[in-house]
Amino acid sequence: VNGARKGWKILAFAALTLAVGRRLIAAEPVEPPVSQEMFTVNNLWMLVATFMVFIMHLGFATLESGLTRAKNTVNILFKNTAIVALGLLTYALLGFKLMYPAGVDPGGVFHFAGLGLDIPHPADAISYAGGHYTYWTDFIFQAMFAATAATIVSGAVAERVKLSSFLIFSAVYVAFIYPLVGMWHWGQGWLSTLGSGPFHDFAGSTIVHSVGGWAALAAIMLLGARRGKYANSTVRPIPGHSMPLAAIGMFLLWFGWYGFNGGSVLSADPGAVSLVFVTTSLGAAAGVVGAMVVSWIIQDKPDLSMVLNGALAGLVSITAGADVATPMGSIIIGLVGGVLVVLAVLLIDTRLRLDDPVGATSVHLCCGVWGTLAAGLFGAEKVLGIADTNTGLFYGGGAGQLTSQLVGVLAVGATCLAGAFLILGTIKASMGLRVSPEEELRGLDIGEHGMEAYGGFQIFVTQ
Amino acid sequence: VNGARKGWKILAFAALTLAVGRRLIAAEPVEPPVSQEMFTVNNLWMLVATFMVFIMHLGFATLESGLTRAKNTVNILFKNTAIVALGLLTYALLGFKLMYPAGVDPGGVFHFAGLGLDIPHPADAISYAGGHYTYWTDFIFQAMFAATAATIVSGAVAERVKLSSFLIFSAVYVAFIYPLVGMWHWGQGWLSTLGSGPFHDFAGSTIVHSVGGWAALAAIMLLGARRGKYANSTVRPIPGHSMPLAAIGMFLLWFGWYGFNGGSVLSADPGAVSLVFVTTSLGAAAGVVGAMVVSWIIQDKPDLSMVLNGALAGLVSITAGADVATPMGSIIIGLVGGVLVVLAVLLIDTRLRLDDPVGATSVHLCCGVWGTLAAGLFGAEKVLGIADTNTGLFYGGGAGQLTSQLVGVLAVGATCLAGAFLILGTIKASMGLRVSPEEELRGLDIGEHGMEAYGGFQIFVTQ
Amino acid sequence: VNGARKGWKILAFAALTLAVGRRLIAAEPVEPPVSQEMFTVNNLWMLVATFMVFIMHLGFATLESGLTRAKNTVNILFKNTAIVALGLLTYALLGFKLMYPAGVDPGGVFHFAGLGLDIPHPADAISYAGGHYTYWTDFIFQAMFAATAATIVSGAVAERVKLSSFLIFSAVYVAFIYPLVGMWHWGQGWLSTLGSGPFHDFAGSTIVHSVGGWAALAAIMLLGARRGKYANSTVRPIPGHSMPLAAIGMFLLWFGWYGFNGGSVLSADPGAVSLVFVTTSLGAAAGVVGAMVVSWIIQDKPDLSMVLNGALAGLVSITAGADVATPMGSIIIGLVGGVLVVLAVLLIDTRLRLDDPVGATSVHLCCGVWGTLAAGLFGAEKVLGIADTNTGLFYGGGAGQLTSQLVGVLAVGATCLAGAFLILGTIKASMGLRVSPEEELRGLDIGEHGMEAYGGFQIFVTQ
Repeated sequence: VNGARKGWKILAFAALTLAVGRRLIAAEPVEPPVSQEMFTVNNLWMLVATFMVFIMHLGFATLESGLTRAKNTVNILFKNTAIVALGLLTYALLGFKLMYPAGVDPGGVFHFAGLGLDIPHPADAISYAGGHYTYWTDFIFQAMFAATAATIVSGAVAERVKLSSFLIFSAVYVAFIYPLVGMWHWGQGWLSTLGSGPFHDFAGSTIVHSVGGWAALAAIMLLGARRGKYANSTVRPIPGHSMPLAAIGMFLLWFGWYGFNGGSVLSADPGAVSLVFVTTSLGAAAGVVGAMVVSWIIQDKPDLSMVLNGALAGLVSITAGADVATPMGSIIIGLVGGVLVVLAVLLIDTRLRLDDPVGATSVHLCCGVWGTLAAGLFGAEKVLGIADTNTGLFYGGGAGQLTSQLVGVLAVGATCLAGAFLILGTIKASMGLRVSPEEELRGLDIGEHGMEAYGGFQIFVTQ
Repeated sequence: VNGARKGWKILAFAALTLAVGRRLIAAEPVEPPVSQEMFTVNNLWMLVATFMVFIMHLGFATLESGLTRAKNTVNILFKNTAIVALGLLTYALLGFKLMYPAGVDPGGVFHFAGLGLDIPHPADAISYAGGHYTYWTDFIFQAMFAATAATIVSGAVAERVKLSSFLIFSAVYVAFIYPLVGMWHWGQGWLSTLGSGPFHDFAGSTIVHSVGGWAALAAIMLLGARRGKYANSTVRPIPGHSMPLAAIGMFLLWFGWYGFNGGSVLSADPGAVSLVFVTTSLGAAAGVVGAMVVSWIIQDKPDLSMVLNGALAGLVSITAGADVATPMGSIIIGLVGGVLVVLAVLLIDTRLRLDDPVGATSVHLCCGVWGTLAAGLFGAEKVLGIADTNTGLFYGGGAGQLTSQLVGVLAVGATCLAGAFLILGTIKASMGLRVSPEEELRGLDIGEHGMEAYGGFQIFVTQ
Repeated sequence: VNGARKGWKILAFAALTLAVGRRLIAAEPVEPPVSQEMFTVNNLWMLVATFMVFIMHLGFATLESGLTRAKNTVNILFKNTAIVALGLLTYALLGFKLMYPAGVDPGGVFHFAGLGLDIPHPADAISYAGGHYTYWTDFIFQAMFAATAATIVSGAVAERVKLSSFLIFSAVYVAFIYPLVGMWHWGQGWLSTLGSGPFHDFAGSTIVHSVGGWAALAAIMLLGARRGKYANSTVRPIPGHSMPLAAIGMFLLWFGWYGFNGGSVLSADPGAVSLVFVTTSLGAAAGVVGAMVVSWIIQDKPDLSMVLNGALAGLVSITAGADVATPMGSIIIGLVGGVLVVLAVLLIDTRLRLDDPVGATSVHLCCGVWGTLAAGLFGAEKVLGIADTNTGLFYGGGAGQLTSQLVGVLAVGATCLAGAFLILGTIKASMGLRVSPEEELRGLDIGEHGMEAYGGFQIFVTQ
């Protein structure tokens, strides 16, 4: 596979960066101690945010199964369940240490006992991150994040990917690629010390969503479209089997996003967290309106699946700058995201003829890139260290750091795309990526799992 | 339309009240400062309550789509998604300032930049409301509340209302009517300074639920029943298409109610919030039992949809007095609510022949009124400033303030009914309220959105 | 019924224990006072944990209805709704006082006014439990726990149990048996003062899950299998009607478990709660992997329902020792739980020919026992009072207290099994436990409730 060769080169460079990075990074500066009460409330918020991010996995599971056909539902639910489990375990085993090499325990990347969570003394744990939350809290919050990156891919490859191949890909991708680029930014890596100003990606438009989105793009290129999707010059829409499931998915994702973005403040700081709640909410709402208006104009009737993706587009878009956007800024960022996602779905599905059953690349990749760039359009100083005025779209009036944002987007994109092509290409060449045509026709539920999603339902419908 | 004319008169009076009220209201008294830790935990609880209220929108979406037919499911999901978005944006643009005119920024109702959320300096934000939570927290919590009022209407008008007409109505109603009556009570308006004692509506049995319920009543009167519901002297039941969706809706609403009622304490005060959790839980539980017993007696078998509505009836009923009821009091209030809702559904559906597919008027209007009156039956002093004894149904032994409760119920009712008739009547006269008979027969999913809720399902059921 | 007689004897002994216990137990030692801020954040966390446990009831409702047939769906949803309501009310009336006899108000077990929640002065409430949370918080958190024990039974008896009989059983079981054994451990009863060391069951592998599991075992023995399940020597699988519902159920249960286990810390202590989050997450994840691998090997294809039960198995298994397990320990405990549940389902369903439609006995009983024993394998001192090293599977290096764990498992098991046989046997002998064969064939939805779960669905599928 051609992509695999290019992937090796870039990945080798990236690994070198990681190795050097680990040596250069000093222990993070100790912040002034906080009271036991403040430590407790900060830690509590991070744990609440953790279970909010967890429920996003149910959101992905229901969104993806709702937007695909009934005969592949068991497979999607299975994948999303397995991914959470594999993601958490893999991150415990490897990811956490790769991503935060300067953590409490410098025992080595592959130090195993306690799965990378062993610490000299429990009391030390609570001095992690300036006393704001415990080492365990940090791990479990980050682990939930990590698992989402792989889940994003799941929807794009739905209805045709081989289960075992997908699980292997996800585990490897979450174990190596996600922590690598994550370290560049959140692990105090080179992106956080760029000469053009630090790369700003508050909660992961690039570091999480585009990481999933780039892999989704690579996967649908290597996999090919579902049977019957593209016949000669026509594009056949394949409707999802349950819009209630899809809507449940969107709402749960929005719900969980309060933890995803709100928790990324890394404390319960009232001003910062509440601003993030406002910008996240308004960004999502504007995404709905943007997608509604555009789909109403283009398709003549307002499309529900476009509007659901519009909400997600708004959320992905605001994620990079949720800590610095004004309410007005968040509305504009979300609105553009909602418009973009409709156009991207049409472009990818119809023009590029890349078959992405749930629009994962449009939502997570296109809007992830847009949101990251948007956060750099006006300067993005931390909200509490800003000037007295808040005119415009962002708090603070720093000069644009669009260059840094571009560097981050491109570096992460190239690495993820290369890494995904590398891993997927290797799998494709060895064990294969795709189920047989017969299995695809019959449905992956029978083929991969030997069961149906609605097996006991006939008893009713045959009445 | 006749209702529209009456509406103009009452609304003009109401607008005058608002204008005068804004001048009279002084800045709210500054409470003694709290520690940074207490501020942080109070603010955190309000944000948690915010995302709990958010998930109620998924509750409404699933409850309403479950209780109606499969051919109108996309339309219901679409409405509920759009309402959240429009509600949040409208409230940011207009509602927040209309409802809390004495807020931090006196820049004027239609002051636009920053969408009414601009503040002189972020540090000032955190001194809002005595330092208990930030200005942003206040906005987003209130905005989530506002959106629920419109969502209540959605279920009553299901399966026949025109999408565009409904969206316009909702946006206008949330922008003007809800903030208006909300200001009367929560914006330190005239209801909070009644001579007969302040009107007591803790979390909105009247101010939120009846506001939605009155509009629902006006809407089903103007819309008329669904085709085939009433033929000559018979009433044809139209069963919902998915009781699991309906049950998911009820549970999510109950879940979210802990934020709706618990957040209305406006701080994390341990005694007050935990009492609200107890009364809310017992009220809901008693509502289930009340509806179960009555439906078992009347209908000979216990009806699931009645029991689901019984839980909601208990919740709506306890909402006005959740801060003052004793555990025993909350059980009796909820029990009566559960009984009432079954009788109300039968009365409205069969006797009055008003077609409310999900029972929204029975739940939110009837129980909203009942709960508000109940809170005035025995006196309703704040729980922490009361006498040593807690005999009876309420903490504290103040004389009844039933008069104030009646005044509040009637004033809000008249205004909302008039406002709803006015807006809906104007829409009906101009663009129409209802879809064509052909579209209704075919289903609004195809008619309004060009798609089916279970489009990919045949692949399974035809096997 | 034979079981009933044995039950009386053991129950009489247990009642005696309770009566004596109430006299012996002194008021709990007053802990040093905490600041108002710490009290507020502790109380807040317990309330958040409460609503998380509440949503587990929706998890049970959807899991159980998804894993059974469409014709019995209304019945399952009804049962789960009614159980929450009856559980909360029964616990308010009786259970709370039975379980915590040494509480603030010594007014007597059957003291009614205020439903056992009356207190001399509200200000006293906040000094309960050393000031960590209010009396009301304690009640509502414990009440939510109590209701889960009965809900566990619901799935095992699905598709054939008479509604009225089940509701009576649940109310009595939650009112008497659950508080009785609960008191033994959490009410400072004899299990907490065993000579071999205190019984360790952190959040209820035994006290909650096996309590439900033993009752489920008794119930399926007395009820018999569903019609057509066992014909001669064959075992006919009866597939569930909606795997999306089942998956929603599993995810919501996992989600709620963060409150179930996390809240069992009984404060927001950062180290303790975050450790519980880590062990709970890794235990669940390992349970998924364990069940996946075993079902893949045994059944040749990975079974979704096995994997869903694997997650729950991991969660039940880690519940007893979630406060003392290391990350590595929690993975091994969960992994074994996931393996066990697959074997248990096959054993109970195929060998023992006991028909448990959702695998409740395998998940809650088998893994409840396993988890409780596992917590005693290596010593289980509280995490914050431990030695400097954390080698191995548990923090702390105390000698094994497996004896105490065995005593607890057996005492609780004998009491619950006897109590369940007693109550169910009495019901069976008087009003009957099971619906008629005709009703079972037609479905309990029509038979018990006169309605269908998907009544409005035909309108779509007949198109």
